[in-house]
Amino acid sequence: MNAVTQITPVILSGGAGTRLWPLSREDRPKPLLALTGDRTMLQLTALRTAGDPRFTAPIVVAGQVQADAIEAQLAAVGIAPLALILEPEGRNTAPAIALAALAAPPQSPLLVMPSDHAITDLPAFHRAIDAMLPPVAEGWLATFGITPDGPETGYGYIRIGPAIAPGVHRVARFVEKPDEDAARAMLAEGGHAWNGGIFLFRADALLEALARHAPAMLAACRAAMAHGVRDGGRLLPDAAEFAACPADSIDYAVMEKADRVAVAPVAMGWSDVGSWDALHALGPHDGNGNALDGEIVALDVRNCLIRSDGPTIAAIGVSDLIIVASGNNVLVMPRGRSQEVRSIVAALQAKETGE
Amino acid sequence: MNAVTQITPVILSGGAGTRLWPLSREDRPKPLLALTGDRTMLQLTALRTAGDPRFTAPIVVAGQVQADAIEAQLAAVGIAPLALILEPEGRNTAPAIALAALAAPPQSPLLVMPSDHAITDLPAFHRAIDAMLPPVAEGWLATFGITPDGPETGYGYIRIGPAIAPGVHRVARFVEKPDEDAARAMLAEGGHAWNGGIFLFRADALLEALARHAPAMLAACRAAMAHGVRDGGRLLPDAAEFAACPADSIDYAVMEKADRVAVAPVAMGWSDVGSWDALHALGPHDGNGNALDGEIVALDVRNCLIRSDGPTIAAIGVSDLIIVASGNNVLVMPRGRSQEVRSIVAALQAKETGE
Repeated sequence: MNAVTQITPVILSGGAGTRLWPLSREDRPKPLLALTGDRTMLQLTALRTAGDPRFTAPIVVAGQVQADAIEAQLAAVGIAPLALILEPEGRNTAPAIALAALAAPPQSPLLVMPSDHAITDLPAFHRAIDAMLPPVAEGWLATFGITPDGPETGYGYIRIGPAIAPGVHRVARFVEKPDEDAARAMLAEGGHAWNGGIFLFRADALLEALARHAPAMLAACRAAMAHGVRDGGRLLPDAAEFAACPADSIDYAVMEKADRVAVAPVAMGWSDVGSWDALHALGPHDGNGNALDGEIVALDVRNCLIRSDGPTIAAIGVSDLIIVASGNNVLVMPRGRSQEVRSIVAALQAKETGE
Repeated sequence: MNAVTQITPVILSGGAGTRLWPLSREDRPKPLLALTGDRTMLQLTALRTAGDPRFTAPIVVAGQVQADAIEAQLAAVGIAPLALILEPEGRNTAPAIALAALAAPPQSPLLVMPSDHAITDLPAFHRAIDAMLPPVAEGWLATFGITPDGPETGYGYIRIGPAIAPGVHRVARFVEKPDEDAARAMLAEGGHAWNGGIFLFRADALLEALARHAPAMLAACRAAMAHGVRDGGRLLPDAAEFAACPADSIDYAVMEKADRVAVAPVAMGWSDVGSWDALHALGPHDGNGNALDGEIVALDVRNCLIRSDGPTIAAIGVSDLIIVASGNNVLVMPRGRSQEVRSIVAALQAKETGE
């Protein structure tokens, strides 16, 4: 492959995320945390393409407050980004990807990856990329269709259409986050995949689609980049121009509207690590099904996630609990309810405001 | 009452106690903690007799490392001890009480109280004292017989004999900590009380009983006091002499052997606060049966004890748990298993030693 057809990884590192409170907080967003091992989610994401000659260094799109931490974390694993685009404010995924597409070589396929997902089967991920490249070279916009392993209601689904290339299908239809009955029906029927938010498309193809389906967004992003400032490896789009940019997801703005949209169904040990339950599922587990991290003493403890970044947590005789100590906070809840962490964060904020 | 017959409270403040770990630790023993409200167990114990002209200021017997804290805590509630006897080392309750008896006016009844028990019905406590005083004046050694409210296996029991005065009975027999079947049998049979470790006897009567039943102990305590040092309100028994003193409990050394031993059965909301379960039982409880103390956010939480002296604890959807954050430690266990805190402490010590 020559330089023109090298793939440009685009890492989206926006959003603080409170679903892993108290570990993830405004000032310690999830991508910057080491959740599944010694390396942070951002580092693991960048390392999925590093050292492979088919890929350039990544373009990272992030908020300005994260700039120093991102550069330091990437440097720690020997990665210098091709560009670090610092959004003046978050506008959802479509503008972030548009900015990256405007900074990338026009014909380069962009591998768009959220910075906080886990992928445990890296060869499967790379095989899916290989399969997607021919249709992507022809201008198809491609998404990774995660093989569902349960009736999840937290993800959008994709109905898989006819094959257009080996391992790649036309998207028949995008399905909004379903209720549980609908999710079960899709699972029973087969032919559906989760929309994991990982994409592969040529920069120019994405920009063409934006021009057709989201022209105001593209215009604002173009203007923001044209009037932006370069500061070493950092690109700072113009804040006033970017403020005019509509906020929208890449799914709504482009993928659900464009003509030639493809999906590569793939089982690659994917998780969005979107909850403590998801993190418990990822493991690793001890012989009693516990995912333990930090200074933990567990006696007669089963199927718990216990995690501390400071205090010693001593647990005895409990099962199916999530126990997390971080900073000046401790969380205790049963497994299966970790979506309710938001309620805790809301209650804490209300308490702070009220007092 | 004249000065001779004023009652001298004797407060025993020995032992660190690990059963309320992580709150109670070597350097923060249970008597010095505020467990049931704003005041510490020591303060609450001293306040049970303070301001009542029938009582002198208390004699406190404690370890040397606690001296400053004890004086400060008592001063904070306006109490200056009659004497603060600082044992060179802990030798169980009998020598501690012997030291106090040697420092007290000989004919004064000593009201011996552990410094870490809760008594919620103070009038009942004082009525029992009133009932005991006549036989105590005649030389009886009296103990408070706590009316049992369950088949506890953690306490010694007293079989109540015939009445010797209104509300006071001869002790028929002391019963060692029973197994559960034996405890249930005593409860079903009636006529038994818990031995709560609170006593009333004249100083000279106690010393006479010691002379008969534990002469070596009495001799060592006498010598330690004779060669001790007075430092303001502090009495420091001689360490070398005290080292010769046998260690024993007042029950074994005296009460189970003496002739005229009385018990006043009393229901006075007593608890030895000997476990997190005991502290949960003491309350106060919110509308969901939770005993909460510190910065706690509890959503859909029932019958839990949650306590923090620092971190914010957020709990959601749990019931019947004990959750305690203190210092650099967090404890999580089900209610009903709090006797197993010792296992945790042992495991932590083993870990520290092993690493």
